[in-house]
Amino acid sequence: MTLPIETPAVLVDLDIARRNVLAFQAYADRHGIRVRPHIKTHKLPQMAELQLDAGAIGITCQKVTEAEAMVDGGARIKDVLITYNLLGEQKLARLARLNERVTVSVVADNATVVDGLAAFFADAGKPLTVLVECNTGADRCGVGIPSEAARLARRIAEAPGLRFGGLMTYPPADGAARVQAFMSDAKRLIEAEGLEVPCITSGGTPGMMQAAEAPIASEHRPGTYIYNDRSLVARGVASWEDCALTVLATVVSVPSENRAIIDAGSKVLTSDLLGLTGYGHVLGRDDIRIDQLSEEHGRLVSDGQIGLQVGELVRIVPNHACVVTNMVDAVHVIEGGAPKGTWPVVARGRVL
Amino acid sequence: MTLPIETPAVLVDLDIARRNVLAFQAYADRHGIRVRPHIKTHKLPQMAELQLDAGAIGITCQKVTEAEAMVDGGARIKDVLITYNLLGEQKLARLARLNERVTVSVVADNATVVDGLAAFFADAGKPLTVLVECNTGADRCGVGIPSEAARLARRIAEAPGLRFGGLMTYPPADGAARVQAFMSDAKRLIEAEGLEVPCITSGGTPGMMQAAEAPIASEHRPGTYIYNDRSLVARGVASWEDCALTVLATVVSVPSENRAIIDAGSKVLTSDLLGLTGYGHVLGRDDIRIDQLSEEHGRLVSDGQIGLQVGELVRIVPNHACVVTNMVDAVHVIEGGAPKGTWPVVARGRVL
Repeated sequence: MTLPIETPAVLVDLDIARRNVLAFQAYADRHGIRVRPHIKTHKLPQMAELQLDAGAIGITCQKVTEAEAMVDGGARIKDVLITYNLLGEQKLARLARLNERVTVSVVADNATVVDGLAAFFADAGKPLTVLVECNTGADRCGVGIPSEAARLARRIAEAPGLRFGGLMTYPPADGAARVQAFMSDAKRLIEAEGLEVPCITSGGTPGMMQAAEAPIASEHRPGTYIYNDRSLVARGVASWEDCALTVLATVVSVPSENRAIIDAGSKVLTSDLLGLTGYGHVLGRDDIRIDQLSEEHGRLVSDGQIGLQVGELVRIVPNHACVVTNMVDAVHVIEGGAPKGTWPVVARGRVL
Repeated sequence: MTLPIETPAVLVDLDIARRNVLAFQAYADRHGIRVRPHIKTHKLPQMAELQLDAGAIGITCQKVTEAEAMVDGGARIKDVLITYNLLGEQKLARLARLNERVTVSVVADNATVVDGLAAFFADAGKPLTVLVECNTGADRCGVGIPSEAARLARRIAEAPGLRFGGLMTYPPADGAARVQAFMSDAKRLIEAEGLEVPCITSGGTPGMMQAAEAPIASEHRPGTYIYNDRSLVARGVASWEDCALTVLATVVSVPSENRAIIDAGSKVLTSDLLGLTGYGHVLGRDDIRIDQLSEEHGRLVSDGQIGLQVGELVRIVPNHACVVTNMVDAVHVIEGGAPKGTWPVVARGRVL
């Protein structure tokens, strides 16, 4: 491919992205699962609207500033779940403003966060919906046992400015059984106290095609599925043809027979390994390993002749698509095999 | 420290940065080595001017767009070396415009790059200075043997729009002897053909205090030395007190006795390991390991009680300072222990 763009560049194939979105939506529809995609993968209002058009009921963001960027950029984005413990005056003020504009829900896994939200929203005109985050094996955030979820649910329900919105988890890829067990227990305990559990939301792309094995969950939040990446190909849940995001790079040096240097380093591909060896897959060249990145150089090595020329273009599927979109101000969108335009990644770098 | 800023935030202590800059400048001055700092670490014109004020003779950039941002932002930045093989009409057009504004030099390690530069600059008003990049053991870019350096030097010198500027290398930390040997041979071969070698420039922070062990090099290009980081502390060339850049984060969850989650993940700290285990050092808490990052979460674990509360602030020295400044739009500068201001990282994300 010879596109009239400077390298390194992040390319997104809209046809592949659309196909990926529709494939999971069809699975979810068949199983009565609502889809709430995580926008961290693309960070683009246009892609969120594509997901809504396909049938998603809203979006997921990780940070308040991400949600702000998405709502600012997408007129049809009206329902946002922020799957994060939010603390501090400034973030809660942002959150309250957002809650006036669209339907917003957040999560909490501890009393300090619930009390902070309650204090802030007690006098707000519109109550805030809060779900309890549960740990189903990923050992990141989340209450550890169902009774703790029930305790926190009651605390939320009793706070004047808050509304209990249900249960949320981000399980490991093979976590469906654990989700089913934990959430069933937690739901029973909460309902026994006379509270409703309006939503049970689970997430993750690697296990999304087994989401129906945890029928207690009413909603799923896949992120990477729209683009896919080398980590998902390695897990066997996608093929190279399903990878919508690639990095276009130029060979800038071929210093030895089995080594070439490209103009994409960790400032584009990132150092994320996700358990893999090497930093990406060169399409069409299974023999090449990207064995080393510095910030602006990527090193390609082969056991045999590298067979690349200075000036030649290569396309790379990165290990992890989500982090790559965070490295660039814009992505180059392709549709029908032709350049469609450059889309600014409006939610890039929104860490607050 | 309780600063009125939202977390996660990148803090830069200006006093420490200045002290680090002056320390190496003093060493270089003693040994007659010119200093040309690499701005990839800070990406800030203000810091480049601090380095120039201390005695640096110019700056180093890795990409043309970085150089553009630095020259646009720093009126006193008048001499820029871009240590990269530049290819393609668009980049060369940017380069030519920059070459009209300030003194610019670039490098090349192959004939394709030299010929591309020559074709573009043949009719330019002002010739472009080109150095030959040499591989002294880092096995990234660079010609592999001195005779090849001499061949390329002649090719540059004979090209109408180009001027041969000397030799450049980015050696391994312990590469002084190899730099001395390679560059001495290359210089002799080039001078034997009647060409002058105006500059021999080497680089890197880890080995900078041994730069004088390669007296053939007239210039050194340290980058990380201005901020330092966990990788340099691990190498024994800096202490925690020398680390000017830290990441301020908030504990958002303490889900178990020995685990806490902070609001800084790979989108701030990055996944760069640089051979280390874990993703940063929590100041004042040698017992804590940052054992896992996802994009917006960092996981802190301890063998004993983690002893952190939700809402508490922690300060982290990242593994690699340079990549962290690329993740944020602005850094919070501290001077005399007090907030001085927020500086936009103008050369962030400049990968072209």
